[in-house]
Amino acid sequence: MTSTSTSTGGSPLSPTARTTVTRGRNRAVVDRAALHALLADALVAHLGVVLDGHPLVLSAAYAFDPAGPDRDGTLYLHGSVAARWLRASGAATVCVTVTQLDGLVVGRSAFHHSMNYRSAVVIGLARPVVDPAEKDRALAMVVDHMLPERSATLRASTRKELAATAVLAVSLHEASVKERAGGPGDEPEDVAAGTWGGHIPLRVVAGAPVPDEDARGAVPPDVTARAVRMAPGGPAASRPGAR
Amino acid sequence: MTSTSTSTGGSPLSPTARTTVTRGRNRAVVDRAALHALLADALVAHLGVVLDGHPLVLSAAYAFDPAGPDRDGTLYLHGSVAARWLRASGAATVCVTVTQLDGLVVGRSAFHHSMNYRSAVVIGLARPVVDPAEKDRALAMVVDHMLPERSATLRASTRKELAATAVLAVSLHEASVKERAGGPGDEPEDVAAGTWGGHIPLRVVAGAPVPDEDARGAVPPDVTARAVRMAPGGPAASRPGAR
Repeated sequence: MTSTSTSTGGSPLSPTARTTVTRGRNRAVVDRAALHALLADALVAHLGVVLDGHPLVLSAAYAFDPAGPDRDGTLYLHGSVAARWLRASGAATVCVTVTQLDGLVVGRSAFHHSMNYRSAVVIGLARPVVDPAEKDRALAMVVDHMLPERSATLRASTRKELAATAVLAVSLHEASVKERAGGPGDEPEDVAAGTWGGHIPLRVVAGAPVPDEDARGAVPPDVTARAVRMAPGGPAASRPGAR
Repeated sequence: MTSTSTSTGGSPLSPTARTTVTRGRNRAVVDRAALHALLADALVAHLGVVLDGHPLVLSAAYAFDPAGPDRDGTLYLHGSVAARWLRASGAATVCVTVTQLDGLVVGRSAFHHSMNYRSAVVIGLARPVVDPAEKDRALAMVVDHMLPERSATLRASTRKELAATAVLAVSLHEASVKERAGGPGDEPEDVAAGTWGGHIPLRVVAGAPVPDEDARGAVPPDVTARAVRMAPGGPAASRPGAR
């Protein structure tokens, strides 16, 4: 089993008991730069809340600001103000998990099949963002997380649009990151049997931008840039396997 | 805003209040075939549990059996018996969410940026799988979910390996599916301004299998088949955008 630890600087993560990685310790990553790299690469977060006494997990778009107003930076999630889970999670403890799947691990036994991945778990109080300036900025960041530099090309959000959108902020302080990379950690006797083991790299790629029926003019450069960066032959993201 | 509803047969989903889609109703999908198609395409589940009073969301490999022993079929998750969350979720209510990201929606305003995705939310009591035959079968299904037909090529799991692995089963009965596809649902005045709108399709693709340092012989056909099926130029999965 191969463990990859990124060491590209930044202040260390300080996980508490509830975010401490208790399994597969060799896969835990403790520098904040690894957290930031993962959050920069991934596009979807899974938000866990407790609703009516049971857990509820929903996918959401997000953005993050290492210099945000919360301790060690801010993770922003947005949704409709009418969404039950967003209302339920205001001022409650939430868990935001962001996972990037990097590959399938092909072992020589069922037991040693695995996946290569990076996964961050962030736990904290959800702070409803009410300040209009912070809300506007957070929503622009969510757009720019999907499509870098796009928000600057768009008209300002209307008061009605801002009022219809709820934004939650979670501190990046209480966080942990796990990573797995490489091939299987097979049993010596299975290796000795002389069969094949390894892994299949996986990656999210973009196709060509698809215009809607009302589209006029050329594809904007920010959209083209995003599609090219994520094209099958494009530059790799900061995946462990790509370093 | 474009809504895609699959209608490929199967008994309808019967969501309860806690799995009823309350936002974006036009995106709710109510046939069980859409749930099965999503579960077949995706590779990672996010399991939400309540641990020490707060939500915890962790990524996990999974498999599903539409003919499994639980009502409307069974979703299987596996992990180490030492994993805190697996122990915590035995006989507790859990939420398993499976999300497939299908694209980035490029709106003509920040408000109408979105993502194309399919997401299933399954809520139910987690049943620890203790029967050795069911456990062995579930673990084979998890391997085959990653790499179809692979488990039949592997040696049997040892008693030690089975004992070291915990498997949770969750009924697929209480489930909901949301889907979004297509371009943005822009405001008429933004469309009238005559700019570009549309979407960028996204897809998970595989690279060539990477042998580990002990690998001998040819890449097994099941591994090659998986990599080819997920190759950038390979056949599309059952994504709404691909139909």
